[in-house]
Order: sequence, then structure tokens, then C-alpha cells
Amino acid sequence: MVDRVYNFSPGPGTLPVDVLQQASRDVVNFKETGIGLIEMSHRSKEFMAVAENTENLLRELMEIPDNYKVLFLQGGASSQFYMIPMNLLGNGKKATYLNTGTWSKKAIKEAKLFGDIEVAYSSEEQTFNRVPTKDEYSVGQDSEYLYFVSNNTIYGTQFPEFPETDKLLISDMSSDILSRKIDVSKFGLIFAGAQKNMGPAGVTIVIIREDLLEKTPDNTPTMLCYKTHADKGSMFNTPPCFAIYAVGEVLKWLKKQGGVAAMETRNIEKAELLYNQIDSGDYYRGHAEKDSRSLMNIPFNLPTAELEAKFIAEATEVGLNGLKGHRSIGGCRASIYNAFPREGVEKLVAFMKEFEASNKA
Amino acid sequence: MVDRVYNFSPGPGTLPVDVLQQASRDVVNFKETGIGLIEMSHRSKEFMAVAENTENLLRELMEIPDNYKVLFLQGGASSQFYMIPMNLLGNGKKATYLNTGTWSKKAIKEAKLFGDIEVAYSSEEQTFNRVPTKDEYSVGQDSEYLYFVSNNTIYGTQFPEFPETDKLLISDMSSDILSRKIDVSKFGLIFAGAQKNMGPAGVTIVIIREDLLEKTPDNTPTMLCYKTHADKGSMFNTPPCFAIYAVGEVLKWLKKQGGVAAMETRNIEKAELLYNQIDSGDYYRGHAEKDSRSLMNIPFNLPTAELEAKFIAEATEVGLNGLKGHRSIGGCRASIYNAFPREGVEKLVAFMKEFEASNKA
Repeated sequence: MVDRVYNFSPGPGTLPVDVLQQASRDVVNFKETGIGLIEMSHRSKEFMAVAENTENLLRELMEIPDNYKVLFLQGGASSQFYMIPMNLLGNGKKATYLNTGTWSKKAIKEAKLFGDIEVAYSSEEQTFNRVPTKDEYSVGQDSEYLYFVSNNTIYGTQFPEFPETDKLLISDMSSDILSRKIDVSKFGLIFAGAQKNMGPAGVTIVIIREDLLEKTPDNTPTMLCYKTHADKGSMFNTPPCFAIYAVGEVLKWLKKQGGVAAMETRNIEKAELLYNQIDSGDYYRGHAEKDSRSLMNIPFNLPTAELEAKFIAEATEVGLNGLKGHRSIGGCRASIYNAFPREGVEKLVAFMKEFEASNKA
Repeated sequence: MVDRVYNFSPGPGTLPVDVLQQASRDVVNFKETGIGLIEMSHRSKEFMAVAENTENLLRELMEIPDNYKVLFLQGGASSQFYMIPMNLLGNGKKATYLNTGTWSKKAIKEAKLFGDIEVAYSSEEQTFNRVPTKDEYSVGQDSEYLYFVSNNTIYGTQFPEFPETDKLLISDMSSDILSRKIDVSKFGLIFAGAQKNMGPAGVTIVIIREDLLEKTPDNTPTMLCYKTHADKGSMFNTPPCFAIYAVGEVLKWLKKQGGVAAMETRNIEKAELLYNQIDSGDYYRGHAEKDSRSLMNIPFNLPTAELEAKFIAEATEVGLNGLKGHRSIGGCRASIYNAFPREGVEKLVAFMKEFEASNKA
């Protein structure tokens, strides 16, 4: 195969080469059945085993307790923005949201269609450059749940510690699931689109505590009730088979790498390399406040927009792809998810040094 | 590659080998970019071109008029069961449904959550073995739309001609889209899950007349408004990239085969081979009435359940896979979608003759 480039895309993001090569074989002929994975009945024993294996690996790697269901849903993480309040709230009921970026803001907008939403914290006026500490917000006693986004892909912030509450805790972990150890039992519901740390686009994982399955109001469309999918092992209708398969392959790879704890160690090391370079002078400036820095997405600026454009263009030429920042804050952004190799970060750091030396502000 | 088996699965169903082989290459390294298709940003110029190409090919092959939008959605055809009435009906408004099988029945159930549903025809008492002729039902003047399922995968029935109405016509074409020429301009909305005639599971195509985009009630969640996806070219959030790509590859293949008209001719020929065998004696009995027979799914019975089990087992041994009928009517079923080769049907017919000769009732 030809040379791989280093793909800093924020999502869909880089996947392990081993996974791509295995998928390449299985797409045409799955386990010598003479049928390609993507044309195989979802009710076949072969695919049922794939789905079961994906769920079991996720349970093992995240140590998901038995009283939680794992669902493989469609519609992207964006569909969870309304499904959560649709299932868990109701007229007159309250929920609390922490507004730390674009995705929490969108989730708040959808939740307002279903209940009374209290925004207990917002860093919007500081262009979302930080997440709150525990003493910066409080959750009303009549609130049903506290909702937060664990890692903010666009602004490069991440909760170093999770909020603590006696209410239900709900988290969008789309961009940092499986990147660090977490205690699932502290949560009521965790969800994540697959296309950053887990696989290709097309499937969203929902990890939900079983008792929450009973809260859905009557007259909710069948496909929008969590219970529908929980009761049928995510096979109520045809699931997104290829995406579920590919997540399973990523999880196998992750297990071979040593699991989530090993990933966390590497992720810390990779991010430090890059933050150290950013902090080494005034040429590069990180967007996030230091205490809120993300290990997954690292947005940074150069002295001028012209230099940023030149930086991105020249980086692309040397095989460092996808470094353009999100349009909402501009600049550059390096997304370095689980599957992003350390060598790519080292190469970026070297490139940053050279670029600074030859492009004085 | 190893021998392919003939895959009669009702869906996900068989795909052209050329498509599988192209996908196998692109998954690892898309167009020599050094990035695999399934890890590529959906905002990259490469993927944007893929999505655009898929839409343009579908427009060309189905001759979709300019005043229709083509959407690539997630959630399966089952999600359209509620999205249609959620967007197009409203309290006190009426819609008319033709109940010709499991999928129309499920659609009726969901529609009842949103409006007043009139079931103008049902063949449920005859185990859904037929579809109605035009004089067997009428549509109330106060009805907003007439909904029908073009082809009933489980029961093997298909509308030989489409209903005519001065109301909006809506059709679930999940199991026969692109299998025969249709006049899209007669319809308000057509939808189809990809995994039978168009590609892998994970994407649902919605073809919707533009004026219908304005009917959605306020307070509908953003992700559930057709307009959201229409306005953003199905890129409001991360789309199911691989499935959209694979549909595009299937459409390229279909175009090379001569387009929809050529497919229709072949589909008629393939189905005739099988129906002729069924009709040649009393050993095999088709489930559907002759005037309602499907060109896509052909359920049939043998003299006894024991013989059916033996038939399916021995067929599998000679490379004829997926012939088990749906649990709701049992027996056997051959699904012979666009990509199913004529040689596979010929092999099945030969096998049926041999089996009958050596297994007298």
C-alpha cells in the first residue's frame, strides 16, 4: 500500500492500519463464507456474532456494569440531543446543562423542546476556552439530570475530572470515549458517535442504566424509545452493520494495545509533546486555558492568519493533513485520537519548530 | 478470491462483486490520498465529491425532477414510519394507508401517534398474499396523503401499477427502488433503506418534493425536520459516509448495466424463470396471488415443513444461501434483487427440479 499520511482530522478521524486492512478483506469475503460483510444478513449467525463481539469488547474495555445496556444506534450523536430529553424529561420537568461549546449548545436547544432547561454554567463569552470547576455551578434540587460534554472537539477543552452530582449524570463523550479510564457506574447515560475514537461514521453508542429505560413517555415513536433497541439487542430493525463491525475491529486493536489505561498513558504523552511545543515560546498560542486542555483536540494559533494559512498548506505538503481549525475559531487544530500515532505528533512538532524558524512573525 | 455463493438474503442483500472489490481498495486508501475512505473527513473535498456523485447518479438513473430533494438519512426505513407523519401531518389531520404487510402495519402504528389514520385496504386476513387493485379502496377527500409499500419483502407481493390519487402519494420502496422504471413526479415522497437494491445497511434515501419541506410543525427536533437535511445537502451532521459511498458504487455499476430500464427487463426474466418452475406443478406453491407477485422476493412452500427444512439445508450445501422464509409465514423465500445474477436463479431452478424428483411428497 502507498504511504499513509498523518491524518489530524477531527472526525471521521484516523483509524489503525490493521483495522483498515482487515476491513478491506472482510468487505469482499467475510470469514471465507463467500459473502461480503456488507451484503450479509444482519440475522445471519456470522453477523450476530460480530455484533455480540463488539458489545462484549466494549463492555470489557470500559468495564461496563451488568445493569447497563449498550445500544448501537443511528442518527449520529446529534440525534441524542433530542432523544435524551424525549426519553428522560417531560413537560414541566427540569434538567441542568453545562454549556462548554457548540455541541452542548445544540443539545440545550433541543432539550428546551421537552422540558425546563437550566444552563448552570457557560463559557460562551470566553469563546468556550475553558470548562468549569466543581464550585462554578450548582444543580437545582428539582433537576432530573446534569448534562455535560466530556471533551469539546472544536475548542479543545476537556473535563479533567467529571462533575459530581446526586442527580443522574449524562455525558456526550463523542470525542474522548475510550481515551481514558472512566467509572461508568457514576453515569446514567453516556453516548458517543463512533467516528472519532471508535470507528467510522454511521453508528452511535449509547450506554444506558437499565432503570432509565422505563422513563419514556407513552406515545413516543417506537424507534425513538431506548427500550425498543435495548429489548432487541439493537436489532429491532436492520442495524448499520459495517459500522458496528468496524467498531469491533477497532476495539480488538485497542485491546491488543493494552486497553484503555495504556491508551490514556499514550494520549497524555502525545498531548504533552504538542503542548510543550506550544508553550515553548510566543509564536504558537493554544486556544484553551491550561487547566481545561484536551488530550484529543489541540487548537492553536500562529501570529497572523496569513501565517496560519501558510502553515496548513506547507504541512499538507509534507504529509500532515487535516490541520485546519474549525471555522468558528479559525487557526489550526491537531486532533490526536487513540489511533493517531505518536510519530505523527513528533513529526508535527518538528515541523512547527522549522516553520517558526523560517517564518518570523 | 474464493468462490462466491449465491446469496438470496432479503436484506442486507447481495451486491455486485465489482462494487465489493472497489470498496475493498478504497477502505484502505481512497484515490491514493494515503487516507482510507472510512477515516476521511466528511468535509474533505474528496468525500464531498463522493456524496455529490452519489446524489447525481441517483437523480440521473431515476430521472428525479429538479423540484425534488434527495436526502441521505440514518435510522433505517423504520425511522421514516414516524418521520413522515411527524413532518406532514398534525393533530386532527387525516392520512390514508394501504395495509399490505408487516412494514405498512408498522408504519400505520407510528402514524397513529400523529394524526387520524384511515386504513383504506387491508389484506391481513389473507396473510397479506395480495395488493389491492385501484377499485378496492378509496381515499377520503380530507386525507393529506396516500401511503403504500411498493413491494412487500416478506409476503412477496408488489404493486404492478401504482395507486393514482389527487392527494400526495407516498411510497416505501425499500425493496424495489431502482428495480423498475417509475415516474417520480407522481409522488410527494419516496423512501428506501439502501440494503436491498442500493447498497449496504446504514443509509436511507428520501426523495421529497420541495414544497413538503415547509409543512413541518414548529417544535420538531432539528434532526427530525426534513428541511434540516435538505438545506445542508445531508451534511447537517456527520453522514454515514461509507454507506453513501457504497450506494454510489452500486449506482455506477447499475448505470454500466444499462440503467433502470435494463434492470427491469432482467428482473422480469429472472422472476419468470422462478415463477415458471413454481407453476410447473403442485410441489411448489407461491405465497402471493399471481396478479400481485413480486419480481424481487419470491416466497414459496413445499408439501411439508420437513421437506422445506431439508430443501433449505441441501440448497445451502450447494451454495444457494439465505433461502429460509420469514418466520411470519415460514417456508422458503428467494430474494433476487438487481445485483442477484441470473445464473443463480438458473441454479436454483435446476436444484428445485432435482429436489422434487428425489423427494416425493
